[in-house]
Amino acid sequence: MISSRKEEFVDFIKTLQQHICDSLENQEPKATFVVDNWERDTFGYGSTRVLSDGEVLEKAGVNISVVGGPLPSSLQEKFETSESDFFACGISLVIHPKNPFCPTVHANYRYFELYDKVSGELKDQWFGGGADLTPYYLFPEDAKHFHEIHKHACDTTNPAFYPKFKKQCDDYFFNHHRNETRGIGGLFFDYLRVDDSHPVDTLLNFSRDAGGAFIDAYIPILNKRKGMLYNDQHRYWQELRRGRYVEFNLIHDRGTLFGLKTNGRIESILMSLPPRVRWDYNVQPEPHSKEAKLLDHLKPVDWINFTID
Amino acid sequence: MISSRKEEFVDFIKTLQQHICDSLENQEPKATFVVDNWERDTFGYGSTRVLSDGEVLEKAGVNISVVGGPLPSSLQEKFETSESDFFACGISLVIHPKNPFCPTVHANYRYFELYDKVSGELKDQWFGGGADLTPYYLFPEDAKHFHEIHKHACDTTNPAFYPKFKKQCDDYFFNHHRNETRGIGGLFFDYLRVDDSHPVDTLLNFSRDAGGAFIDAYIPILNKRKGMLYNDQHRYWQELRRGRYVEFNLIHDRGTLFGLKTNGRIESILMSLPPRVRWDYNVQPEPHSKEAKLLDHLKPVDWINFTID
Repeated sequence: MISSRKEEFVDFIKTLQQHICDSLENQEPKATFVVDNWERDTFGYGSTRVLSDGEVLEKAGVNISVVGGPLPSSLQEKFETSESDFFACGISLVIHPKNPFCPTVHANYRYFELYDKVSGELKDQWFGGGADLTPYYLFPEDAKHFHEIHKHACDTTNPAFYPKFKKQCDDYFFNHHRNETRGIGGLFFDYLRVDDSHPVDTLLNFSRDAGGAFIDAYIPILNKRKGMLYNDQHRYWQELRRGRYVEFNLIHDRGTLFGLKTNGRIESILMSLPPRVRWDYNVQPEPHSKEAKLLDHLKPVDWINFTID
Repeated sequence: MISSRKEEFVDFIKTLQQHICDSLENQEPKATFVVDNWERDTFGYGSTRVLSDGEVLEKAGVNISVVGGPLPSSLQEKFETSESDFFACGISLVIHPKNPFCPTVHANYRYFELYDKVSGELKDQWFGGGADLTPYYLFPEDAKHFHEIHKHACDTTNPAFYPKFKKQCDDYFFNHHRNETRGIGGLFFDYLRVDDSHPVDTLLNFSRDAGGAFIDAYIPILNKRKGMLYNDQHRYWQELRRGRYVEFNLIHDRGTLFGLKTNGRIESILMSLPPRVRWDYNVQPEPHSKEAKLLDHLKPVDWINFTID
């Protein structure tokens, strides 16, 4: 039985945005978030919050957007529907810390409704989202921690969710042209709809649990790694690997390409791109180096059962 | 009347590669090209020449490749043909100078043949290529020079070529999501086939003229700008604008996406990406600044008739 929860979801993402920005600012002694609120001609608004050139956070963006109106005809086929009105809202964040031992992180939680064009009646609704971690140097205990927290957030609703959404994350955040995952994974789900076992408030609460887990999953890692000493070689490797992040987002990421092709707000969409990036020709790390260790783990790994040496 | 010219085209690109690398090394006091010759399991070979970390050239790649065999089924529809064998060869170069007042340049000249699967008979052939300039600071006299040299190279064969290929270049090298051209244009042509007025040797010679024009079109600009004084702000702007170059190549460039999707040699394909790049949130140049002047000209401009102040 579907039933609108758009107000509840908007409340959730607004609160989460504030909570995440506060938690990040607590880790950052130098810079604060700059708020850029925007409105669209047609129905829609958003709040882009960007922190730049911090001591801990080189670039961090935590955005929310709320849009709606007639469903673009190009999306009717994708959503297997006829002419409709839609509502979509979500929170999207990407954090690029400065220290190469701190991983980049991405999270996104979103909610969608479709309405009959004539009656205005709600005819479909679904949830989507996830979070994934992209280290430049691998600390297995960090990867395990990130997965454990997200598994716990899933298990409250349904123990089948974590293994399913973990696999979807490994499959989705994959740089096919490099034959490697973007990072060490996390959760990814889409088109999550109500059914007999999962009424709408169960899925809404699951989104709240998973979104809320971000802080416990990421902030302790940031806090643990942000003071580690690094040199130019570590930074060089980080900037090279950030190139892979750009490649994924611009070549493969459906969300980015969807935004670009539907005339989305470019600066908010591309806020995900890292601040400083390098591409050099055919750089290969030394065998058995810390850099090579990262590459060895850019494939699906069962982090929950991973044995830490 | 079609007739194979594959040996002639391979000779042309090998000679041009050497000539261009020599001309670039003459401009560069510190670094030289490193040669990386490669072969594929199936029929194919190439030579990737990369110069890195020079004093004048931050990253330069001048590649040739010669490939062939059964035409991948995914390309049969694109080339409007049935099961066939193919031959393709080309030279491709991208030069990223260090000095922000020196423009980035790209050029590519290629040749294609298709054969009947059974008889092995040549059934189609075409030429493609072009060259385009991407400045970070606009010097109209440089843009005009680059276009004049290429126009002259076209006019020898057919005065209709320059206006047609100049327009195709403006249309192709366009960052739709930014609503701006990648740079100040040049030439772009594809599927150039023999007809009554253009027998195969006319098109082969046109490719030689256009490819050979690269040196006269670009080296004088590099030589003129490489010693200009610059500061961190100029460099910052260059790195930001290089981000647009990456966006074009990964989101829009058919050549890059074609290579990635047909399992091409990744490091040779992505050699085009700039060495150091930045993305910051929503950077807008001061009105009437030198940076704003560049943006004002990132649209189709008639450089041949452009009046230099």
